Amino acid sequence: MSDALRNRILSELEDLVLIDPHSHINPHAAASTTLADIMGYHYYTELAHSAGLPREQIEEPGLDPKEKVGRLVTKLDDLDNTIQVSWLLEMCRKFFGFEDDRIDSSNWEALYDRALKKMSEPNWETQVLQQSKLEKVFLTNDFDDPLSGFDTSVYIPCLRTDDLVFHLPKAETRERLAKATGIELSDAASLVSAIGKLFDHFKSNGAKACAISLPPDFSPQPVSASTISPILNALILRELTADEASSLSCFVFWTLAEMCAEHSLPFDLMIGVNRRVYEEGVFQGQDLFDKRTSMVQYQQLLNAFPQVTFPISVLSSTSNQELVSYSWIFPNVVTNGHWWYSNIPAYIETDCRSRLQAVPKTKQIGYYSDMYKLEFALPKFSMYRRILADVLAQDFVQAHNWTEERAIDLGKLILRGNVETIFA
Amino acid sequence: MSDALRNRILSELEDLVLIDPHSHINPHAAASTTLADIMGYHYYTELAHSAGLPREQIEEPGLDPKEKVGRLVTKLDDLDNTIQVSWLLEMCRKFFGFEDDRIDSSNWEALYDRALKKMSEPNWETQVLQQSKLEKVFLTNDFDDPLSGFDTSVYIPCLRTDDLVFHLPKAETRERLAKATGIELSDAASLVSAIGKLFDHFKSNGAKACAISLPPDFSPQPVSASTISPILNALILRELTADEASSLSCFVFWTLAEMCAEHSLPFDLMIGVNRRVYEEGVFQGQDLFDKRTSMVQYQQLLNAFPQVTFPISVLSSTSNQELVSYSWIFPNVVTNGHWWYSNIPAYIETDCRSRLQAVPKTKQIGYYSDMYKLEFALPKFSMYRRILADVLAQDFVQAHNWTEERAIDLGKLILRGNVETIFA
Amino acid sequence: MSDALRNRILSELEDLVLIDPHSHINPHAAASTTLADIMGYHYYTELAHSAGLPREQIEEPGLDPKEKVGRLVTKLDDLDNTIQVSWLLEMCRKFFGFEDDRIDSSNWEALYDRALKKMSEPNWETQVLQQSKLEKVFLTNDFDDPLSGFDTSVYIPCLRTDDLVFHLPKAETRERLAKATGIELSDAASLVSAIGKLFDHFKSNGAKACAISLPPDFSPQPVSASTISPILNALILRELTADEASSLSCFVFWTLAEMCAEHSLPFDLMIGVNRRVYEEGVFQGQDLFDKRTSMVQYQQLLNAFPQVTFPISVLSSTSNQELVSYSWIFPNVVTNGHWWYSNIPAYIETDCRSRLQAVPKTKQIGYYSDMYKLEFALPKFSMYRRILADVLAQDFVQAHNWTEERAIDLGKLILRGNVETIFA
Repeated sequence: MSDALRNRILSELEDLVLIDPHSHINPHAAASTTLADIMGYHYYTELAHSAGLPREQIEEPGLDPKEKVGRLVTKLDDLDNTIQVSWLLEMCRKFFGFEDDRIDSSNWEALYDRALKKMSEPNWETQVLQQSKLEKVFLTNDFDDPLSGFDTSVYIPCLRTDDLVFHLPKAETRERLAKATGIELSDAASLVSAIGKLFDHFKSNGAKACAISLPPDFSPQPVSASTISPILNALILRELTADEASSLSCFVFWTLAEMCAEHSLPFDLMIGVNRRVYEEGVFQGQDLFDKRTSMVQYQQLLNAFPQVTFPISVLSSTSNQELVSYSWIFPNVVTNGHWWYSNIPAYIETDCRSRLQAVPKTKQIGYYSDMYKLEFALPKFSMYRRILADVLAQDFVQAHNWTEERAIDLGKLILRGNVETIFA
Repeated sequence: MSDALRNRILSELEDLVLIDPHSHINPHAAASTTLADIMGYHYYTELAHSAGLPREQIEEPGLDPKEKVGRLVTKLDDLDNTIQVSWLLEMCRKFFGFEDDRIDSSNWEALYDRALKKMSEPNWETQVLQQSKLEKVFLTNDFDDPLSGFDTSVYIPCLRTDDLVFHLPKAETRERLAKATGIELSDAASLVSAIGKLFDHFKSNGAKACAISLPPDFSPQPVSASTISPILNALILRELTADEASSLSCFVFWTLAEMCAEHSLPFDLMIGVNRRVYEEGVFQGQDLFDKRTSMVQYQQLLNAFPQVTFPISVLSSTSNQELVSYSWIFPNVVTNGHWWYSNIPAYIETDCRSRLQAVPKTKQIGYYSDMYKLEFALPKFSMYRRILADVLAQDFVQAHNWTEERAIDLGKLILRGNVETIFA
Repeated sequence: MSDALRNRILSELEDLVLIDPHSHINPHAAASTTLADIMGYHYYTELAHSAGLPREQIEEPGLDPKEKVGRLVTKLDDLDNTIQVSWLLEMCRKFFGFEDDRIDSSNWEALYDRALKKMSEPNWETQVLQQSKLEKVFLTNDFDDPLSGFDTSVYIPCLRTDDLVFHLPKAETRERLAKATGIELSDAASLVSAIGKLFDHFKSNGAKACAISLPPDFSPQPVSASTISPILNALILRELTADEASSLSCFVFWTLAEMCAEHSLPFDLMIGVNRRVYEEGVFQGQDLFDKRTSMVQYQQLLNAFPQVTFPISVLSSTSNQELVSYSWIFPNVVTNGHWWYSNIPAYIETDCRSRLQAVPKTKQIGYYSDMYKLEFALPKFSMYRRILADVLAQDFVQAHNWTEERAIDLGKLILRGNVETIFA
């Protein structure tokens, strides 16, 4: 493949202003205030911990941000091969003018101070958005988020529903739900009403999606209200059995799908995470997966809700072919980004190629940042665009004699156009 | 890799006359009569449906072929990235002289008419065979196919056995079996006799293989005749239990393997399809898969029938390494083509490379078309040959200093030589 | 990618003196004495058998070595595409000056004789070690190996524990254990004592690891001593139930992990092999796998033993992403080589890239030979180094502007440095 061709395509993709369709940004504190906000991202803490830094040193209560960065830097050399550290370097270079080959004991303090100065500029958040060519960023809001106090035309609310589906047996969740909706759970109908209220609230605040992450063994089924009401009563008195908890999860999940249908919201499914596999891990660095999962577990759901669009992410790259095939067949299944453990070039390349070769181009959301702090969009989208440009150059311009313009248009559709139409 | 080297290898492979070892051709109507026969292939109808075209518009009873093509063309732009649409363009270019970049509202009618004219030529079928360099095409015949009225030296009969293994509980299947064999099912022995008659019929008409597609959870086991006779009696009176149906499937399947041994026929296993996952999908666009399947499910079968050759296709690319490893160890396992959802370049490349690196070269059937209409062999084999030429150039000539001639010989063996010896 | 760049990197990696961290070398007969020792390696016998050579011809009792080679040579042409035969050719070229393109009926006898002459030189073993740049070779010793009569500074003992975990119900295993330790099994405590004695013996002889290969369905759990004592009593009187056997396996396995903690030994886990799947296969050519396995089965173990390092190998390439992710999160998980059915370039490439992109560089053991005879290290490490050089050139120097020196240092760390620190 000609490097010149690939670079021309890449350059055009880099000019595109982006909408990031999935993040964990806190819109009240979107940008970082110190380098510790960036290096405190779980990718760095968990990799440093994996390389031998004790969790207690990383998560010491009251730890000064600069000291935290200093401790993490001691492990950076062990991680310098990772794509995640390449993101860190790219952020430091692009945002803070860092020019060395690596961050180490000799230069991190100067970098920390320079970053601090830059981040203290009053319009830092706006600078990051502009430099990253970010027009809008989708959020992942707790169900009881008031959704006020931020610009919902830039930070797009999305209803995160993990707590509702998997943690309703916890008193805390039910209290939050009651507080958010004014509805006490007494039976299945009250639960449906409460969820309906959440959707009203989110829709009226411009929400564009409902989202959830799901364990590998989840297989949604419809459950009758008459099964659920007694479970809701039992909930208050005792621990649920595994079967009861599973029925309740299914009922809430199915209700969410019904609400998505009613409120015309896409339902983002992020399939495959096992929570707390490594219990002594750092914050957000405890989750893993079991590749023994199949999209056939969603057969009944996908058939029952033809009117709901399901943008689907899979955690295991071994699930990507199923995602491609289900998107190829089901009108309501859309491929969505490259998630977490699959978000490294070795997997993105094959996953991206297979999707572009077999899924209608209008049904592919190329990438989302999944970021917690705004600075991460730049290096993450940058990594994806380089891979996308390679694939467009090789599989379309070279293999099928497409014009460059046509390949670039395909790239732009995947990167942005589909985000606009799918989350219309 | 040098493009010149790859092109020289490709050019030699393109000169080779082919035997297509697996298709769904109807030998009484092998070639298309209108563009609707081509665009009615389920890949186009299901992708158009996936991109939003209602099934009712695609499958409207009595729909005029030209109108059908017109409707499908409205969605082609959404699919123009897919490898399947690249096949369509290649067919239109090579067979009908189409010269535009894409098929759209401005040019499809002229194309339709030109194709119609070409297809109306009296020797169209022969033209396609010759232009595609096809010498023989294997069929997939229903068990009650009379196998008469066509040239069995060009269209090679193969006994498809899905109905026998999985649909014997349906009265219709048993009636067809009784009609085809003159044997009414009364007990296990009569069932074995009936299946034996089918083999006699197929063998005497030049059949070269027995074939079946299998669901991901199928695991063949021997079942005694004394278990089966009561099930055959129950069959007429009531619905079978899941266990009974499974025993019956195993018994029929095992009997087929015994007949393959007796009649020296290879038994094509196509492993991994779940039927009717998307029930509202278009015709033949409803099937998907569950990647949680393993070739170890066939351990007992492969050990029990060392004298039967099993050319095996796997639906999930995640099964390819098992296929490679089982073919590397079991003398009676042969790798067979790149099936359906794995039949896209992103998967063929890795699957093809791994097979060439680890399976004896005499035990690999490179490719089959799986086509329903004769025109598809040309673009499908063409796609495969390009990938094969890349792999030969890179992994053999460049990595191991093979001469081009030797690499080309390997390619020809995979493409044709092995088809001749394995289905001798 | 520039070939010159890759070749410069490769050349530096080729200069590195190696420690091979996993082999099946017999230190009393490390090198081959005839070509039959090399071609008798199960890769060649099983591939020749797979290509049609009857097992009886390969394993005929009392077969003359030269005759055995002659028989295997008749099948070499059918296997000449395989990476395994490329190793054979590389050995013959580098060690015996073989210059032809292939080994066939016209040249094998001369080759056999030349090899015999070379192997008869008194210092052949030393020559192989030197030419292969091998400084040390890890063994895989039976638990009752006396570990005497060889140089344990070159041949490093490792305690293989398959028999203890999976074959204790066999009287022969218990007799070997009693003989090696002087302890008769009477209850759980005596079993723990016996295992402790083995660790003392191995540690005092310089052992650097405990190792085991595990079936795909194994999921270690702690089992109480009070559960085990009655099972040990039952063992002598009758066949254990599957549950009892499984409990006993878990107890022994868990005890091994405890001993690894106590004796500061890494515990090599080789996950995923099903033994004797093809029962009529040649010696060591009967094992395969079931890809339906997950590292989540080891969750409890990895949490329970944070102080034990687990270098993990996976048999199925579809498990590689789990291995990458678990190594990324768990401090005590280390990626270990490319095992058996995954040890071909098509799989090594992606597996190697994904590890280098996401696992701390200090937690990766690049490669081991898994060899039975010393001559195999040369072509196997050579294959791996070529792939590693490609990845370093492409993913680090080109994609991230690393200096060549830095990329080479990473390569050396993966190839050797980590072996030294992990098995310190």
